Amino acid sequence: MSRKLRMGMIGGGIGAFIGAVHRIAAGIDGQIELVCGALDIDPERAVQAGKELYLDPARSYRTYDEMFEKESQLPADQRMDFVTIVTPNFVHFDPAKKALEHGFHVVCEKPMTFSTDEALELDRLVKETGLTFALAHTYTGYPMVKQARDMIKAGELGKIRKVVVEYPQGWLSTPLEQTGQQQAAWRTDPKKSGKAGSVGDIGTHAENLAETITGLHVTELSADVTKFVEGRMLDDDANVLLRFENGAKGVLHCSQIAAGEENALNIRVYGEKGGIQWHQHDPNTMYVKWLDKPMEVYRTGNGYMGEAAAAHTRTPAGHPEGYLEAFANIYRGFTKTVQAKISGSKVDPVYSDFPSTHEGVRGMKFIDAVIESGEKNAAWVKLD
Amino acid sequence: MSRKLRMGMIGGGIGAFIGAVHRIAAGIDGQIELVCGALDIDPERAVQAGKELYLDPARSYRTYDEMFEKESQLPADQRMDFVTIVTPNFVHFDPAKKALEHGFHVVCEKPMTFSTDEALELDRLVKETGLTFALAHTYTGYPMVKQARDMIKAGELGKIRKVVVEYPQGWLSTPLEQTGQQQAAWRTDPKKSGKAGSVGDIGTHAENLAETITGLHVTELSADVTKFVEGRMLDDDANVLLRFENGAKGVLHCSQIAAGEENALNIRVYGEKGGIQWHQHDPNTMYVKWLDKPMEVYRTGNGYMGEAAAAHTRTPAGHPEGYLEAFANIYRGFTKTVQAKISGSKVDPVYSDFPSTHEGVRGMKFIDAVIESGEKNAAWVKLD
Amino acid sequence: MSRKLRMGMIGGGIGAFIGAVHRIAAGIDGQIELVCGALDIDPERAVQAGKELYLDPARSYRTYDEMFEKESQLPADQRMDFVTIVTPNFVHFDPAKKALEHGFHVVCEKPMTFSTDEALELDRLVKETGLTFALAHTYTGYPMVKQARDMIKAGELGKIRKVVVEYPQGWLSTPLEQTGQQQAAWRTDPKKSGKAGSVGDIGTHAENLAETITGLHVTELSADVTKFVEGRMLDDDANVLLRFENGAKGVLHCSQIAAGEENALNIRVYGEKGGIQWHQHDPNTMYVKWLDKPMEVYRTGNGYMGEAAAAHTRTPAGHPEGYLEAFANIYRGFTKTVQAKISGSKVDPVYSDFPSTHEGVRGMKFIDAVIESGEKNAAWVKLD
Amino acid sequence: MSRKLRMGMIGGGIGAFIGAVHRIAAGIDGQIELVCGALDIDPERAVQAGKELYLDPARSYRTYDEMFEKESQLPADQRMDFVTIVTPNFVHFDPAKKALEHGFHVVCEKPMTFSTDEALELDRLVKETGLTFALAHTYTGYPMVKQARDMIKAGELGKIRKVVVEYPQGWLSTPLEQTGQQQAAWRTDPKKSGKAGSVGDIGTHAENLAETITGLHVTELSADVTKFVEGRMLDDDANVLLRFENGAKGVLHCSQIAAGEENALNIRVYGEKGGIQWHQHDPNTMYVKWLDKPMEVYRTGNGYMGEAAAAHTRTPAGHPEGYLEAFANIYRGFTKTVQAKISGSKVDPVYSDFPSTHEGVRGMKFIDAVIESGEKNAAWVKLD
Repeated sequence: MSRKLRMGMIGGGIGAFIGAVHRIAAGIDGQIELVCGALDIDPERAVQAGKELYLDPARSYRTYDEMFEKESQLPADQRMDFVTIVTPNFVHFDPAKKALEHGFHVVCEKPMTFSTDEALELDRLVKETGLTFALAHTYTGYPMVKQARDMIKAGELGKIRKVVVEYPQGWLSTPLEQTGQQQAAWRTDPKKSGKAGSVGDIGTHAENLAETITGLHVTELSADVTKFVEGRMLDDDANVLLRFENGAKGVLHCSQIAAGEENALNIRVYGEKGGIQWHQHDPNTMYVKWLDKPMEVYRTGNGYMGEAAAAHTRTPAGHPEGYLEAFANIYRGFTKTVQAKISGSKVDPVYSDFPSTHEGVRGMKFIDAVIESGEKNAAWVKLD
Repeated sequence: MSRKLRMGMIGGGIGAFIGAVHRIAAGIDGQIELVCGALDIDPERAVQAGKELYLDPARSYRTYDEMFEKESQLPADQRMDFVTIVTPNFVHFDPAKKALEHGFHVVCEKPMTFSTDEALELDRLVKETGLTFALAHTYTGYPMVKQARDMIKAGELGKIRKVVVEYPQGWLSTPLEQTGQQQAAWRTDPKKSGKAGSVGDIGTHAENLAETITGLHVTELSADVTKFVEGRMLDDDANVLLRFENGAKGVLHCSQIAAGEENALNIRVYGEKGGIQWHQHDPNTMYVKWLDKPMEVYRTGNGYMGEAAAAHTRTPAGHPEGYLEAFANIYRGFTKTVQAKISGSKVDPVYSDFPSTHEGVRGMKFIDAVIESGEKNAAWVKLD
Repeated sequence: MSRKLRMGMIGGGIGAFIGAVHRIAAGIDGQIELVCGALDIDPERAVQAGKELYLDPARSYRTYDEMFEKESQLPADQRMDFVTIVTPNFVHFDPAKKALEHGFHVVCEKPMTFSTDEALELDRLVKETGLTFALAHTYTGYPMVKQARDMIKAGELGKIRKVVVEYPQGWLSTPLEQTGQQQAAWRTDPKKSGKAGSVGDIGTHAENLAETITGLHVTELSADVTKFVEGRMLDDDANVLLRFENGAKGVLHCSQIAAGEENALNIRVYGEKGGIQWHQHDPNTMYVKWLDKPMEVYRTGNGYMGEAAAAHTRTPAGHPEGYLEAFANIYRGFTKTVQAKISGSKVDPVYSDFPSTHEGVRGMKFIDAVIESGEKNAAWVKLD
Repeated sequence: MSRKLRMGMIGGGIGAFIGAVHRIAAGIDGQIELVCGALDIDPERAVQAGKELYLDPARSYRTYDEMFEKESQLPADQRMDFVTIVTPNFVHFDPAKKALEHGFHVVCEKPMTFSTDEALELDRLVKETGLTFALAHTYTGYPMVKQARDMIKAGELGKIRKVVVEYPQGWLSTPLEQTGQQQAAWRTDPKKSGKAGSVGDIGTHAENLAETITGLHVTELSADVTKFVEGRMLDDDANVLLRFENGAKGVLHCSQIAAGEENALNIRVYGEKGGIQWHQHDPNTMYVKWLDKPMEVYRTGNGYMGEAAAAHTRTPAGHPEGYLEAFANIYRGFTKTVQAKISGSKVDPVYSDFPSTHEGVRGMKFIDAVIESGEKNAAWVKLD
C-alpha cells in the first residue's frame, strides 16, 4: 500500500509563476502534499508565502540549508520525501546537490545547472545515491509526445530523415527587462541565467523534445545566434542546423523576438514511410502523414492511442488537457517511482519515462555547443 | 485569513470517471482537502475506494445518510464544509436536499435533479439556508466563455440576433449500453437518467452555455427528438429551434450518434456589430468577427483579455489549459464564496459567477420543454 | 473529334459580378468561346460591354429576343451552341424557355426560376427537346463534394442518420440595399428575387449540397424564417429542421446577418459507421471521422481520391483549387455532354453529374416549403 | 483600346502538367489566345497536341526555331505577341534568348536558366530590347502575398528581424525517378535539371517568396544539403541559414522527402512590431500577429485589403481562389504590360509587379550559393 509523498519547495514564493505551476502539477493526482518550504530568498517573504500556502510555520524555513538540516532530523514518517527546486538557473545546482546528499529525492527546474560540469556531477550523484531525480522538461509530459515517441520507436514512420523543431516566443521583442519585469530580468541576466538566453530557456526544450521523440542524439550542430534587442546581454534568437546520430538532418530555431508568438513549441519528424506533426498549443492532437493514404489525426483519449499516452491521460477524448496536466505527468512518474522505492515494489515502466539527469546533461551540452557555434560564426560543433 | 475547505464526496468511487475529475478539479488550487466520503453504493467498494484516496477509515462512510449524521457531530474545526455529489442523476436530489438541511454547502453534478419540482425545491432551500450551491456546468468555467459573456454584456457585438450552439458526440452510435459499459448504461436508462438521454446529458450543457454567454433566456423552442439506435430507451439526438427573450433566434443540436465526434461543444453568437465563435476542443481560443475589419483571434493569458477571463487563467499565454482547469474554476468560485462566508468577508464578484440552482432550474425546464416538444412533433413549447 | 463550343451570354455586362465569374469558368478548359451576347438591359451598356469582351459588334445584341432570332439564322458552324443566363432571378425563365425552344442548350443561374410552375415547365421542356441544361449550383462542382457523395453512395459511412448544413453570410447585417448597392438591392426586392431572400439566394445552395451529397431527398421541413434588418422586405435568416426520406434528421440554417461571416457554406453528415465534414472556405480538404480509428483528412489531388474527384481536379495535391474551378467543373460536364451530342459519341458518366432542371425543381420546392412553414410559425411542410 | 494577345507555346504538349496549367492561367481573364506552338520535342506528338488544342495545323510547328522563323514572317496582326516556355530547365535559355532576339515577349518557367551566366544574359537582353519578360514564380501571384509585401513595405511590422520560409514536399520520398515517372525523372537528372534538385525546383520558390515579401536580399547563407534517397543524383533536402541585408536572420528549408507533405510552402516574417504568417495551402488567409493585441486574420476579398491584393482577386470574400488564379495574376500583369506597350499607354503599377529576369538572376545565384555551401559543409557563402 502506497502513501502520499511529502514535498518541500525551494523558491516559488509569492508572485513566482513557476512555483504555483509546480504546486498545481504536484497536487493534481492527490498523491503529494506540500509540507515545508524555503520559499523565498527573503526570509520575511518566505514566511508570508508559507502562510498563504497553509504551511506549518515551523516548517516554513528561511533557507534551504536550514530546511535540509531540520527536515533530516524529523522522524521518518513526518520528514519530507523530496524537494522541488524552482529557483532561477544559478540556484539549481547547490540545493539539488545538497538534497541528494541529505537523502532527498529531487524535482528540479531546467536547465538543470549553470554548467555542464555541474550537470555531470548531479548525474553522478543520482547514480551513486539511487535517489530519484525529475527534471521539469514539461513538454515531454504531454501524452501525445509519448505517442509520437512510441510510434517512431515501433518503426511506424520508418528510418527518421528530417526533424524540424521550433520554439518561437515574442514576449521579449522589446527590452522588457529594463522595465523591471521580474521574469524578463533574471532570464536576460548572465549571472542568473547562465551563458544562454533564449537557447537555455526554450532552446533546450526544443532539443529535449526532438531527442525524446526521435530517440536520437544530436551529434553536431551549427548555430546562428543573435541578440536582436539593443542592450540585451544574452541571445534572444537562434537558428540551428542539426545532424543526428543516424544521419538524419534537422532544423531547430528558438526565439524570444518572434513578435506575436506565445509558446509555439512544435515539432515535425519525417521518416521514410511517414511523418508526424505536433504543436503544444493544441497538444491533444497529432497529425500523422503517410506517403499514400490520407493524413490521420490522432487525438488523446481515444481507444486507438498507445499504452503510454493512455496512461498519461485523465479525461475522455474531446475534453482537452493542457500544460498543467503534462506537468502533472512528470510528477506522476516521479511519484510512482518514489512510492515504489518506499514500498519496495516495482514501478510500471510506462511511468518511469520522465526526464532526469541524463536529459539535464544533454541540455547543458546543447547550450554549450550552440553558444560555441554562435561565437564561431556558426561553425559545426560536436556534442558527444 | 482563510483556511482550506474540507470536502466530503458522495459517489465517485473506483472506476467512476466524474468522481476523479471532481477530485482533481477541487485539488488544483490547494484550497480544498478531501476528508470523508460515501464513495459507493456498495459498502465494500466504498471502503476500498476510501483507502485508495487515503481517507481516514472512520470517515469513509457506507451511506450518505451516515455521513451527514456523523459529520454533523464532529467538532466545527474537523467537520466537512461541503459535499460533492457525483452520483447518477436519480441520486442528486436526495443527498443535495439533506446536505443543505444539515448545513453543508453543496457541489452537484448536472442535470441538477430528476424533475423540475425537485430543482425548484433545491433552489428554494438554497435561498432559505443561505448556503452555497455550485452546479457542475463545467464548460462555463472556461476563461474564454467568461470573456465572451463579458464582451456581449458590454455590447461589443451589438444586439444579439442569432445563436448556434452544438454538442455532438459519437460514442453512443452503437448500442453500447447493451455491452455492459457502465457510463452508457445509466445514461440510457430512464430510471437513472430521467426522461431525457442526450438532451439531459449534453443538451443542457449547450443550453447553459448559450444562456450564460448571451445573458438571454430561451423563451420558446421547437424540438425534433430522435432515438436512432434500435432498442435505446432515451433520445440520442435532438435538433432544436430556439427563440430568445430579446427576439434573437437560434439553433441548438445535440447528439450521441454523430459518429466520430468527441465532445465537440461549440457556440457561435451573432449580433448587429459582430460575432463570436468558441469550441471547447480548443478552449483557449475565441474567434471574434466583425462587419468590416479582420477577424480577431482572442487567446487566454494575453494582456488584452478581460478581468474575469484573466482571473480564471493559471498559465501564461500559449500554455494551454483545459477541461480540468475549467472545472477547477467552478470549484474556485465556490471555494472563495464559502471561504468568504466563513471569514465574514466579501467575495470578489469576479469569482461568484459559478452556476448554481438558477442554472439547475433552467436546465430542468429546458429538458421538460424539449421532451414535450419532441412528443408533440416539434410543436413550440414555452419556457417560463 | 470534338470542337470548341460557342457561347452566348444574357446579362453579365459591366459591373456584373456573376457574369465575369461565368466567363472565367467557361474559359478555363479552353473548350468554350464567347461569340455573342445580350449583355445588358440597357442597349448602350450592352454594346459597351460587348466591346470590352472583344465581341463582334454584329453579335452584341440589344435584347435576348434579338439574339435568339439572329443567331438562329446563322450557319450552323457559326451559330452559338448554348446560352448562359446570368440575370437576376425574375429574368431566368423567359430566356431559358426561349433558348430551349430555339434549340439552344442552356446554362442558367440559380434559383432556376421565379416559381415552381416555371421550374416544372423548364424541366418538361428539357426532356422534350433533349437539350442540355446546367444549373449553376456551383458548390457541387467541388471535387471534394463529389468525393463525399461517392463515399456515401458506396456505403462507407453506413446508413445516414444526421445532416447539418449551414450557409452563413454577414454582408446584409446592415440595410445595405438602402445604400444603392446593386447586389443587395435586387436580392432583397421581391419583384426581382421572388418570395425568398436568404432562403433563395443561399438556402437553396445548402439544400442542394445536402441532397447531392447524401443522395437523399428532404421530405419534410419546419422553418423559422426571420427578417432581422428593419425595413427589409425578404427574409435574411432561416433556421430549418429537416427530415429525409430514409429517416435521417437534419438541420439547415442560412443567414445574411451572421456578422463577420463570408460564404461559410459547410456540411456535416453522420452515418452509422462514420461522418464527413466539408467547408467551402477550405474546399480541397474533407475530414472523415470514424467510430474507432483516427479521423482522416482527405485532400484533393492525392492518389487515394476517387474517380470523380480526380477527374474534376486540375492541379497536383497541395496546389489549391477554388470556387472558379468548381464553377468550371459545372461547365466542363455541360461542355462534354454537349460535345458528345454534337459528335454523336457518349459522354463519360463521370462528367454528366452536373446539376440540371431536376435540381432546379427541388430548389424551388424547397423555397416554397420554407416560406410556407415560416408563415405558419414553423409548422411541418412536406416536399414531394 | 486594347486587344487580346496572341500566345505561342514551347513545350507543354500531351501529358505535360505545367503546360496545361499555363494555358488555363493565360486564358482565365479572356485577354490571351493560343495561336501557335512547338508543343513537343517529338514532331508527331507536337502535331497531335496541336490538334487537341484546336491550333491551326499550319501554326503547330515542329521546332521552336521553325516557330520563330515562320511567325516572324506573318503579318503583324496575326503574328504571335509572346511565347510561353514550359520545357525542362535545360531548354529555357535558348528559346528565351531567341524569342527576345526575334522581338517576342516571353513568359518562362523557373528556374530561369541552367546557369547564372545565362540568367545574366537574359537580363541584359530584356533591358536591351525593352521587351517584357515574366518568370513563373507563381506563388508571388497570390493576392495575400502582395498584401504581406505591401504591409511590410509600409512599415506595419516595423524593422524585419526574422524570416522562416519552408517548402516541404514528400513526393520523392522513394526513388520515384527509377519507375519512369516523367516529372520525377527530369527533375532528378543533372543534365536536365541543373546542379540542384530540390533547391532549384522548390528552394528557389521559397527564396523568391522571402525576398519578395520582405523586400530584402539574402546576402549570405549556410546550407546543409542532402541526398537522402539512395541512388539519387541531386539533392532532395536542404536546410539553410539565411542572413539578410538589413541584419535580419532566417531559416529556409526545402525538401522532397518530407513524407506526407504536399506543396506546403509557407512563410513567417517577424518585425519589431508584429509578424505575419501565410501558407499556400490556405492562400486566401494571412495571420497577422501583434505584440499586444489579438492576432488578426486577413482574408482576401474584404474591404480592408490593400489595393494590390484587391486588384488581384476575382471573387468575393469566402469564395476561395487558388493556384491557378495566382498563376493567372502573373499572366495578367504581363498581359497588361504588353497591351500597354502595344497601345502606347502606361500600365497601372499595381499590375507591373510580376517576377522577371531580376528574380530569375536572384534564383540562379541562390542555387549557386546553396550548392557551393553544401559542398563546403555548410560554410557561409555570399550572394552579391
